Amino acid sequence: MNIRIYNARILTMEENRPLFEGELHVRENQISYVGPELHKEAKELADVSWDREIDAQGNVIMPGFKNAHTHSAMTCLRSYADDLPLLDWLNKQVFPMEAKLTPEDIYHLSKLAILEYLTSGMTANFDMYLTPDTVAQASLDCGFRTVMCGGLNNFSQSFEELEEWYRKYSDPESLVTFRLGFHAEYTNSRENLEKLSALAHKYQAPMYTHNSESRSEVEGCLERYGMTPTALFEALGMFDFGGAGFHCIHMTDEDLDILKKRNVYVVTNPGSNTKLASGIARIEDMLKCGVHVAIGTDGPASNNCLDMFREMFLVTGLAKLRADDASAVDANQVLRMATVEGAHAMGLPNCDVLAEGKLADLIMIDLHQPNMQPLNNITKNIVYSGSKQNVKLTMVNGRILYENGEFYVGTPAEEIYAKANEIVSRMKKS
Amino acid sequence: MNIRIYNARILTMEENRPLFEGELHVRENQISYVGPELHKEAKELADVSWDREIDAQGNVIMPGFKNAHTHSAMTCLRSYADDLPLLDWLNKQVFPMEAKLTPEDIYHLSKLAILEYLTSGMTANFDMYLTPDTVAQASLDCGFRTVMCGGLNNFSQSFEELEEWYRKYSDPESLVTFRLGFHAEYTNSRENLEKLSALAHKYQAPMYTHNSESRSEVEGCLERYGMTPTALFEALGMFDFGGAGFHCIHMTDEDLDILKKRNVYVVTNPGSNTKLASGIARIEDMLKCGVHVAIGTDGPASNNCLDMFREMFLVTGLAKLRADDASAVDANQVLRMATVEGAHAMGLPNCDVLAEGKLADLIMIDLHQPNMQPLNNITKNIVYSGSKQNVKLTMVNGRILYENGEFYVGTPAEEIYAKANEIVSRMKKS
Repeated sequence: MNIRIYNARILTMEENRPLFEGELHVRENQISYVGPELHKEAKELADVSWDREIDAQGNVIMPGFKNAHTHSAMTCLRSYADDLPLLDWLNKQVFPMEAKLTPEDIYHLSKLAILEYLTSGMTANFDMYLTPDTVAQASLDCGFRTVMCGGLNNFSQSFEELEEWYRKYSDPESLVTFRLGFHAEYTNSRENLEKLSALAHKYQAPMYTHNSESRSEVEGCLERYGMTPTALFEALGMFDFGGAGFHCIHMTDEDLDILKKRNVYVVTNPGSNTKLASGIARIEDMLKCGVHVAIGTDGPASNNCLDMFREMFLVTGLAKLRADDASAVDANQVLRMATVEGAHAMGLPNCDVLAEGKLADLIMIDLHQPNMQPLNNITKNIVYSGSKQNVKLTMVNGRILYENGEFYVGTPAEEIYAKANEIVSRMKKS
Repeated sequence: MNIRIYNARILTMEENRPLFEGELHVRENQISYVGPELHKEAKELADVSWDREIDAQGNVIMPGFKNAHTHSAMTCLRSYADDLPLLDWLNKQVFPMEAKLTPEDIYHLSKLAILEYLTSGMTANFDMYLTPDTVAQASLDCGFRTVMCGGLNNFSQSFEELEEWYRKYSDPESLVTFRLGFHAEYTNSRENLEKLSALAHKYQAPMYTHNSESRSEVEGCLERYGMTPTALFEALGMFDFGGAGFHCIHMTDEDLDILKKRNVYVVTNPGSNTKLASGIARIEDMLKCGVHVAIGTDGPASNNCLDMFREMFLVTGLAKLRADDASAVDANQVLRMATVEGAHAMGLPNCDVLAEGKLADLIMIDLHQPNMQPLNNITKNIVYSGSKQNVKLTMVNGRILYENGEFYVGTPAEEIYAKANEIVSRMKKS
């Protein structure tokens, strides 16, 4: 498809390029032009037969949000187990229910999450879940971009599977790719961690894991190894090729120095951290010492929604509360985390900004809504005041998957809802 | 208008009445039936000629949210002054800009806020602002329900005005009413506070004010009077007839006992408190000692949006973080604060629940959206996962003011946006 979007306010998210009025062209799955409005006779316009020309009516076109940490198929557990501390929630509610999921269930439940990502302007997710093959199929069938990662632990996934998936989903041109990863320090033996490190070195690959989400997790690691999870990972050389830690709440200064040194991203998950009372991450300290921060929703069982607007407000709001300083972590920094930093954390360098040759993963933000008025500062409006209601269009890889409240993902939304409710009924009965 | 809404899930918010499937009738501005689906021949159906019969398609009908503390016309300052601590923000940015507002500006800017309230399912607001007459006119012209309150301080509003407005807007049947109120302890002389107390006693009326929003406010009061603002108000008899305190963050146990004793509501404003780094209110302690809590957005200059869904998640999330306990303040408690407690705090006893004879202030929550699926627990879905995108219909006083993204408030939304931008341009230039 060749799509022209004109009469737009464009926020490319390139550094030092402020919002401007102009147009953007998509040819197949790439951006072919982004700049000022063109005259009718301009070469860029005359040479192309447009499948669609969209009048953006002054709305904002910007890169899609990147959900840099989630567990999509946990949609089945939304509003099922709540109001419990992390480890009780995980051991008593989540793990027993997850044991009942089939790979096919995970396919349908992942699709439900994809619908929600689209309503929130997310164009890619980073998904740690049990059966990568059906997670991948859900994304391919919807046309959504997903980076999967291993979730190896003592009782599920094997090293053979990890390597198999890593090789199978290695085409960087595909909508679905796979990264090395494990659930967490506290669910893996030392032997596992050493073998994971060897794997990272074998492929010179980045590594991904939950890190220092709860105080008890860090205390347990200190007891077991005499060091924090971050220091342990460093001692084992697990992040010698970068990657990311999810949550990273209870971190020492030395931990942050290690992340900085290894160029390991922090993916912060403030919605989940708030609801599980896990704590407030040291985002301002991280930024000050040069650690890169991206944002994730975590799974719908803990959050419970998949909404980048809520996460963005929480990132800035909790940072301000933590620092006792209303100037901590401002809107520009947060919007960068939700877009550019997210893409880089996930290993998607071609989805970070709007520029010629980049992949066409973008959204339209509706300014014709009361929460976006007046137009004092559009970035602040988006971060401090934005909501799912402002997402007018979500395009992934050059295809419009969501527009004016309608989904274009191959399967009717109502079918996906029905399937999710069917799965939940069965799980509760068995 | 006589309106029948059928095929609905109804959450009346009456105590001990769980969600049920049924229908609800509105005759003029009141609810005339709420109960199970009726047979075609039922008397309640046959006697009425319906102006509209609405198939709710299984969606939720519930009381509208009550925004129990706001400053609507501050929409002009949304995304204008951010990332500043409370007192700097107030003295350097807010007060100088507000000085430029005309009563007519306040009319238009209040309307912009009303549009946003409707998109968030709010059916009433409690509005402290400079010129009650034009605030009232905005609400009357839109058909929105507003309780105004005085904002007297050393440099604006007079006792004569306060009494005049109190008497002028005293009709409890009107969409607009007025309550006694003052800005805060720190912006009023002792003489003012004593005269306010006399006024409360003269009319045996509840009193409303900002209370203990920042640490420095409490410290200042301790220096001036040797007691906290709450203890001072009690010593002066200012809340002998109830009312509410907005924010109430830095409160002692003794302060909470006073609120309990005088049946003074706390209106919590977590969005604003987070963004201004004011602190986290002691909501769990308040509930435990029997203090009633309602929820407000505060004004759009500090929040910056007017979104009850964001506030509800923040109430529970921040309470969990503060208590270091994921079970603190659950979804049922929060939904009650946003509806029933809000109505009572504002003095709107006929807008609290859905029942025969109550005013028809209600909303329809769209469950046919991915963030509301699966239907494990609808209350939790609304509080933990809901968003403006789920508000399908907002009815105030029996009139539908918002439905499927369209406003029915007399003036086109685009005109209201244009007016707000015009006012802002003028303010910035002068």
